[in-house]
Amino acid sequence: MEYEEILEAVKERLPAQRFTHVLGVVETARILAVRFGADADEAMLAAVLHDVAKVEPADQMKQMILREVDLPKDILRFHSELWHAPVGAFIAQHTFGITNPFVLDAVRFHTTGRMNMTLLEKIIFLADYIEPNRTTPGVADCRELAESDINAAIILVYKRTVAYLLSKNATIHPDTIYGYNDLVSQ
Amino acid sequence: MEYEEILEAVKERLPAQRFTHVLGVVETARILAVRFGADADEAMLAAVLHDVAKVEPADQMKQMILREVDLPKDILRFHSELWHAPVGAFIAQHTFGITNPFVLDAVRFHTTGRMNMTLLEKIIFLADYIEPNRTTPGVADCRELAESDINAAIILVYKRTVAYLLSKNATIHPDTIYGYNDLVSQ
Repeated sequence: MEYEEILEAVKERLPAQRFTHVLGVVETARILAVRFGADADEAMLAAVLHDVAKVEPADQMKQMILREVDLPKDILRFHSELWHAPVGAFIAQHTFGITNPFVLDAVRFHTTGRMNMTLLEKIIFLADYIEPNRTTPGVADCRELAESDINAAIILVYKRTVAYLLSKNATIHPDTIYGYNDLVSQ
Repeated sequence: MEYEEILEAVKERLPAQRFTHVLGVVETARILAVRFGADADEAMLAAVLHDVAKVEPADQMKQMILREVDLPKDILRFHSELWHAPVGAFIAQHTFGITNPFVLDAVRFHTTGRMNMTLLEKIIFLADYIEPNRTTPGVADCRELAESDINAAIILVYKRTVAYLLSKNATIHPDTIYGYNDLVSQ
């Protein structure tokens, strides 16, 4: 499928507000790709697909995760909020025919992060947090860091995410900690 | 070696202020053992030994960790502050002749915590944080929870520890997150 076709198909799958967020991530990812020297087309493609599974019912995602050998079972021990990322990569591959592994990984790890993220993965992870429709407290600090230092911006996103989860007594996915450790060690 | 002999040997190895902390952990561990139904002698033995490697020079601990197959190499990627716990368990076993695996594990995991901690491990982990000489901000909340709910008290210790490490841009040992996730999931 061509990019414009995928954009239309994603628009049909998602509620209007969610699609507005997706458009914000697409534009932010494009800007970050230009700024930091990634492929803008790949960034836009990953961005448009990153939340493709966002409104799938949790029980259907759970069945898919249990059924498909390519989907990680351990994520079921964490909040269902995290499931749409690997499920989205699966849908991008099997429904939308995406074969570029970098695009698929950018979708797959956009919520948790992980160690050794590619530049494309970093761009989607960060764009998802800072796109213009986001009003999270402190997001302005992340946007400012993203002007010049993508790793510093992502460290701040990791810190905010972990602090938020701690405040809710919620579990923290290990990949988030591995990703944070990886960047603060550099 | 008998308990009293070990106590004297630990006193000789440690600076006075550190030994005062050890005595605070011993007494707190004894109280927690009685309160929550663990073996008080085991708790006191683990407590007296928990910081036995605390003043070992980092480079000597590093050499020991690299040399001894029983010591975990991955901990070298984290702050040297964490090394004294597994090194302490090693010294407890090989210098002090401790063979009780529960006592050794309570020493080994007293700084990071981990998933599926035994009651003895929980007691040493918590006693180390709340013993009467500690003046960490917020320690009173942990002491209050420790009056009735050891898991709730430990969750708070994990949260305070992770928040502190984030504030320092310091790496977080995965066992701390696995331990936190384990308890908040229950």
